[in-house]
Amino acid sequence: MLQSYNSTLLENAVSELSKLPGIGQKTALRLALHLLRRDEAESVSLGESIINMRKNINYCTKCHNISEDEVCPICSDPRRDNKTVCVVENVKDVITIESTRQHTGLYHVLGGLISPLDGISPADLEIDSLVKRVTEEELQEVILALSPTIEGDTTNFYIYRKLSELPVQVTMLARGLSIGNELEYTDELTLGKSIQNRVLFSSSFGKK
Amino acid sequence: MLQSYNSTLLENAVSELSKLPGIGQKTALRLALHLLRRDEAESVSLGESIINMRKNINYCTKCHNISEDEVCPICSDPRRDNKTVCVVENVKDVITIESTRQHTGLYHVLGGLISPLDGISPADLEIDSLVKRVTEEELQEVILALSPTIEGDTTNFYIYRKLSELPVQVTMLARGLSIGNELEYTDELTLGKSIQNRVLFSSSFGKK
Repeated sequence: MLQSYNSTLLENAVSELSKLPGIGQKTALRLALHLLRRDEAESVSLGESIINMRKNINYCTKCHNISEDEVCPICSDPRRDNKTVCVVENVKDVITIESTRQHTGLYHVLGGLISPLDGISPADLEIDSLVKRVTEEELQEVILALSPTIEGDTTNFYIYRKLSELPVQVTMLARGLSIGNELEYTDELTLGKSIQNRVLFSSSFGKK
Repeated sequence: MLQSYNSTLLENAVSELSKLPGIGQKTALRLALHLLRRDEAESVSLGESIINMRKNINYCTKCHNISEDEVCPICSDPRRDNKTVCVVENVKDVITIESTRQHTGLYHVLGGLISPLDGISPADLEIDSLVKRVTEEELQEVILALSPTIEGDTTNFYIYRKLSELPVQVTMLARGLSIGNELEYTDELTLGKSIQNRVLFSSSFGKK
């Protein structure tokens, strides 16, 4: 039910806030009233930070990650291994992988996963540009870091086939037990995979 | 753990969004990335609606409800009964009561409840201005519509005492069974009150 808020400005803000994912009419009203109670400077700076971000952030022409310049800081960092590229679904996955500090190479953001049901075909994703990068930048390794879902595996397989003729090593993230999870509650598929792909104890914990 | 977002603009927006109540770092990042993916015009209009609202909404000088003008549309509506004033805790409660369409009088927003534990004393609330209104506007009825909590009842009682010398009727919202709730699950205090305050069946359902 639409309520009367006694102010079109408040109504506008509530309607805009409620367009955000996971924010309904009630939460939007709570947020708007909070913004009204707060210092004017703080609320204005929230509004401005959204506008600035949306107007000035673009996408890196090389890896399609978000970037304020034409080429993003990761692509232009000379300390990173520019022969290894990690393929991810979206910008968030770049942030997640960066937080592990285990990847020192570059990225390639696909912008989604192949999903016929959602009408997303390989042509909608940055796959052709990846194939081009492999040749042009003479990449040595492409790490497929997509989610272990049907869509992720379909995309993994499609990219693998596209790259199979090129002189590049294609690897993918290991699948196995989640650290901290009890064996008892691990699903059989994952457990099965982790038996198939078992590794030498000494290579994981001992000195190499 | 603070993550690197590869863009100070994104970092700013995430940090501003995460200051909102109930929105943590992860949700803020999800919202910011959503705003980046959306049409520029839509994201900019969210930012602008927040700034416009915060800059242009003030408080009604009569009832302290939010208002774009000096006096709010409810106070200046000639069709409303200006001798009956409903006392509420905050702006949200005005919206909630308006949505019932059962109150045709005006409002008076206290801006909080008396709560010594939170350091809120009667002087911090719009109680003196209420007493003044009762005299100046020759009010006939003050309806106390505060939450049935310890703070609400303390405030109710404080206002009741302040107004007891004045020629005005002080009423409060009825307390009893919530409509749609099973008797079995109603707490004893509420059930007890609803027995004490029982009403004639004919006055509630029959024709008066």
